[in-house]
Amino acid sequence: MDDTVDRPRSAFSRRSLIAAGTAGLAVPAIGAGVALTGGTAKAFAGVTKKITIYAEALPGGLFGYGLEPGKATVPGPLLEMYEGDTLEITLVNTTTQRLSIHPHGVDYSTDSDGSPFNDSFNDPGETRTYVWRSREMFAAAGRRFMPGSAGYWHYHDHAMGTDHGTGGVAKGLYGGLIVRRRGDILPDKQFTVVFHDMTINNRMAPNTPMFEANLGQRVEWVAIGHGNLFHTFHLHAHRWVDNRTGMLESVSDPSPTIDNKDLNPGSSFGFQVLAGEGVGPGAWMYHCHVQNHSDTGMSGVFLVRNADGTMPPGAQEAIDRFRGHTHTTTTSKTNDAHGGHG
Amino acid sequence: MDDTVDRPRSAFSRRSLIAAGTAGLAVPAIGAGVALTGGTAKAFAGVTKKITIYAEALPGGLFGYGLEPGKATVPGPLLEMYEGDTLEITLVNTTTQRLSIHPHGVDYSTDSDGSPFNDSFNDPGETRTYVWRSREMFAAAGRRFMPGSAGYWHYHDHAMGTDHGTGGVAKGLYGGLIVRRRGDILPDKQFTVVFHDMTINNRMAPNTPMFEANLGQRVEWVAIGHGNLFHTFHLHAHRWVDNRTGMLESVSDPSPTIDNKDLNPGSSFGFQVLAGEGVGPGAWMYHCHVQNHSDTGMSGVFLVRNADGTMPPGAQEAIDRFRGHTHTTTTSKTNDAHGGHG
Amino acid sequence: MDDTVDRPRSAFSRRSLIAAGTAGLAVPAIGAGVALTGGTAKAFAGVTKKITIYAEALPGGLFGYGLEPGKATVPGPLLEMYEGDTLEITLVNTTTQRLSIHPHGVDYSTDSDGSPFNDSFNDPGETRTYVWRSREMFAAAGRRFMPGSAGYWHYHDHAMGTDHGTGGVAKGLYGGLIVRRRGDILPDKQFTVVFHDMTINNRMAPNTPMFEANLGQRVEWVAIGHGNLFHTFHLHAHRWVDNRTGMLESVSDPSPTIDNKDLNPGSSFGFQVLAGEGVGPGAWMYHCHVQNHSDTGMSGVFLVRNADGTMPPGAQEAIDRFRGHTHTTTTSKTNDAHGGHG
Repeated sequence: MDDTVDRPRSAFSRRSLIAAGTAGLAVPAIGAGVALTGGTAKAFAGVTKKITIYAEALPGGLFGYGLEPGKATVPGPLLEMYEGDTLEITLVNTTTQRLSIHPHGVDYSTDSDGSPFNDSFNDPGETRTYVWRSREMFAAAGRRFMPGSAGYWHYHDHAMGTDHGTGGVAKGLYGGLIVRRRGDILPDKQFTVVFHDMTINNRMAPNTPMFEANLGQRVEWVAIGHGNLFHTFHLHAHRWVDNRTGMLESVSDPSPTIDNKDLNPGSSFGFQVLAGEGVGPGAWMYHCHVQNHSDTGMSGVFLVRNADGTMPPGAQEAIDRFRGHTHTTTTSKTNDAHGGHG
Repeated sequence: MDDTVDRPRSAFSRRSLIAAGTAGLAVPAIGAGVALTGGTAKAFAGVTKKITIYAEALPGGLFGYGLEPGKATVPGPLLEMYEGDTLEITLVNTTTQRLSIHPHGVDYSTDSDGSPFNDSFNDPGETRTYVWRSREMFAAAGRRFMPGSAGYWHYHDHAMGTDHGTGGVAKGLYGGLIVRRRGDILPDKQFTVVFHDMTINNRMAPNTPMFEANLGQRVEWVAIGHGNLFHTFHLHAHRWVDNRTGMLESVSDPSPTIDNKDLNPGSSFGFQVLAGEGVGPGAWMYHCHVQNHSDTGMSGVFLVRNADGTMPPGAQEAIDRFRGHTHTTTTSKTNDAHGGHG
Repeated sequence: MDDTVDRPRSAFSRRSLIAAGTAGLAVPAIGAGVALTGGTAKAFAGVTKKITIYAEALPGGLFGYGLEPGKATVPGPLLEMYEGDTLEITLVNTTTQRLSIHPHGVDYSTDSDGSPFNDSFNDPGETRTYVWRSREMFAAAGRRFMPGSAGYWHYHDHAMGTDHGTGGVAKGLYGGLIVRRRGDILPDKQFTVVFHDMTINNRMAPNTPMFEANLGQRVEWVAIGHGNLFHTFHLHAHRWVDNRTGMLESVSDPSPTIDNKDLNPGSSFGFQVLAGEGVGPGAWMYHCHVQNHSDTGMSGVFLVRNADGTMPPGAQEAIDRFRGHTHTTTTSKTNDAHGGHG
């Protein structure tokens, strides 16, 4: 599945690129109640990771980014790095159109801006290198800190069609980018979900991604907004903290817990949930909560299997109803058994 | 007033249902600067409260939820529980349409999902039980915690009209749900305000709810968004912290203080203010700050009476102007005295 | 530049009005890890500052607020005060239309509400005084505090055209308002950026404001939303913390770091960045990330000069491309050199 990354604990899959930090480097404990002796965060000497990304035309007029030739997907690969590390991306433009790669959240010079404004893009057929750096927080004044790069970010084209990459974004040139602090909890699985105009990952129900996990797996969602419309992302039966990690950073973390969040163009957020925790396995919906968006195709399935990977009771029936999706009718349960989702 | 709950301190009115916790159970003190000796929050053995909700047709094509037959309102009753408690809701569908009740923020199994997708709804005339559980935060790893259920949530139909309950939501099948942490400050009065398409609680000015309190009363607002449009909720002369409770959780709480917040479909938030604190009694506006929304009916009155309940100078005149609301004209003050709001 | 305030450190320019606090008054240290001995914030006896604001008609059908006759701008002057202080504003209406000034975030009585609803506005030619008070946080119960006034706020007309000031806001009657806590870090420069329907500060690209700073200068952005449309504010190559100050308030501050934020009608936020820090000098874009908004004029330039004020390589070329902005074409780099931005 293009939008899902499976990974064993403490490891990163081929799809999920980490600019890995030097092993064994201690990270200062951070949390409420910790005495700040120095007042500054410890600087970290990061590493540089080099990757190649191929921008390619796809069937149906789409375009995608991929880590190997012929493997482009929508969304593109989920990229990851630790604060302090650098990602050096060689972008191969295999298409006949101008395009680029523009990141959110990380540091880059004007020549890696990815914008025509800064003359930073790939002409058709051109190969060009973009450098993304990251950093840890650093002292500002008093007890304050200028922020580091850690966050749930994203990248996208900024050159196809218009100076803002509207054409490239519309056709699928986007993906997720995670910058972690050392010490952040790593997930078992990762899902990238892009609310983009009336689509999810440029697809509409019932062809939207079905994300799957086993009961209790730690699942990381990276949610990204694109296009021209406003959206709200809702996940059934799971919730997260509206802060940097989606978890309470301490018992005194004041952040609210939510299960519905604005997901508008250019914004992104992420969080981790334990699949089915407290609610059990089953087929759970995720959808845009703008009613006419969900009704016309912006919904999908988060399938939480039993812990052993088998299907829980009722889940296949729910998926079948979803796949027979007819969005506007009102049908009684009697008919539902042999009919559509509605 | 359907959207207002009056309650003596430390008690809950009939309208405001609390799945009350066992009295006398100590809650661990939580706050910045507190040494975290254990690193985990204390588990709480919750209680189960059973209630019956009646879904009924109302005049004007509306539908509502109510706690007694013939008492349905728009919005429905404000429901409350403490983290750890369970609410068992028997939903009686007195209507001729398919409908359900779907909560945000709490735990439920697929058969309490309230969605046709999970075959979880009431056929016309059917009675069905939905179980909502809640929980306290629990340790994740390091100093992090997976969140508990505490929050300002809401519930709504997820089955009438479409699979997402668009028809039921459009007609008024929605209400507020509060899950509190033990130790949370209880209010004197509670208001539920739903921004729903071009209406507030399915009403337009000057027929929008007039919320009333006496100077100094602790008033809790539960704000909910529904429908197809984006909104921003603004309250005059009062402000709140954009975190879980609306108050600073400590002097070092970094959350911003705001008086205008996005209120989009499926989202909700809540906060407490001291009525008229620092500004005095009077008639204060609340409204959507999207200009053409406020101009065409999305505004209402928060009447802060004197501490003894009497009307402050000028308040009745303001209300009269509001009730004679003509939204688009420009009138001088001379005419205002005998003319409309504008 | 009307939307920029230049100021030497520790001082405030004529344009940036501070209701200055009594010098030498100690501010209690606030931050995570600080022992709260008293549990309450120390009250501060504020000062009162009196200013006069002139509301004037401007060319092109616009209106503006100014601190001197004939000096009105869009947006109006950036106003500042410290928590505890009072601003007494004499508003001179030099126009032929009803108008007012309505603030967000501060305390005011009904007669300073700025709304026709409260009979609080200036008739054509009328002079009227509005009083804005502010306050520090104060203890609520337990460890909680009711919030003070500190924040990145704004003010606007609430009377021209409609009861909500839609006509005045549409024509430019808006500006920024900062309430600081004592101890907050002061910036070197300040920018006010208002996303208002399809414009930035009522201008469209390439005539949108070009904000300028030298490398390393501490720059404060005050972002305000107005009108009828939803927007997202994105700044290239810089990021901020989504909390009260835009900086991490401690190493344990859980707030996320972002570079794209919803900026909807009536909302405002602010943050400080070090110009070009970690990315170098250059011409950086800021824009609405709603694609058709950026494509049709909602973008501008943040010019980060070299530390000595000279132009960095490539910056003028980028600005020239921007000024030759043609938003919809796709042009190769070869043509870009002599052609437009796109």
